Amino acid sequence: MTAIPTDESLQAIARTIGERLLARGQWFGTAESCTGGLIAKLCTDIAGSSAWFERGLVTYSNAAKRELLGVSADTLQRAGAVSAETVQEMVQGLLRVAPVQWAVAVSGIAGPGGGSADKPVGTVWIGWGGGEVAVSASRFLFEGDRDAVRRRSAEAALLGLEALLQATR
Amino acid sequence: MTAIPTDESLQAIARTIGERLLARGQWFGTAESCTGGLIAKLCTDIAGSSAWFERGLVTYSNAAKRELLGVSADTLQRAGAVSAETVQEMVQGLLRVAPVQWAVAVSGIAGPGGGSADKPVGTVWIGWGGGEVAVSASRFLFEGDRDAVRRRSAEAALLGLEALLQATR
Repeated sequence: MTAIPTDESLQAIARTIGERLLARGQWFGTAESCTGGLIAKLCTDIAGSSAWFERGLVTYSNAAKRELLGVSADTLQRAGAVSAETVQEMVQGLLRVAPVQWAVAVSGIAGPGGGSADKPVGTVWIGWGGGEVAVSASRFLFEGDRDAVRRRSAEAALLGLEALLQATR
Repeated sequence: MTAIPTDESLQAIARTIGERLLARGQWFGTAESCTGGLIAKLCTDIAGSSAWFERGLVTYSNAAKRELLGVSADTLQRAGAVSAETVQEMVQGLLRVAPVQWAVAVSGIAGPGGGSADKPVGTVWIGWGGGEVAVSASRFLFEGDRDAVRRRSAEAALLGLEALLQATR
């Protein structure tokens, strides 16, 4: 099991992302469920982030996912809030409503409650989209307590975006 | 100068707020600019927060403040994003669009850049509203670096909400 990411290590990734976005004149936004604003907080920890971080939507309830991001009620009922479909629709929704070129979305089960045999605590779906890249989603199963799962989710979301930015530079 | 609030001390306030809201069956939402998701993150640090934290809007850009919360372009131009009028409109907007009974809004200058003679770094407006209580706003001037200003802003926002909940119990 890898170490739990520290504030400093997470901020370092956010800083690199900010530098890349700033150099390209592009904007970023977040749509978060289980991370609950942690990714937006990490981005805005960085001085000058108002030049590349545009908005973050903490869509904790299903109503918020529907109303703010246009996630379909059918998707939420059929696939569930923690699913590839939901995070993909969250990414697509944010790219549609916000003046951002890049978006990430996170929905998972941080625990300690809420787990099931199908989707145990630590199950997290992350979606990415933007640029010329098709919207993608990956499922993770993170170890640790609520804080660890949230930090690992934020790290994976930011590293995935950093990789996309590097691949499309 | 008081000590910079720790994660633990901020989470303790969020936990108390959650207990009060849960006991009343009420919901809470946040509209954050300079704190950038920190308050939403602190609320969702608490296990079971999905039973009282409904959504958080990190309206970092002025476009986000207008589009998501209905803050008027006139207010943003005349009074500025860091003003009583803006945080009051942010609170009113969130109470209008979200199924929440309580809302807080924060807009300020966390620094290190962005300060002026009129509104130096550390100037933060916080607004509160909900229940039967009229929307209110207070201006703060917090000391310290970006992280300290953001933590002190989150603390003041949460303590103000806790006080409102206690006063209306």
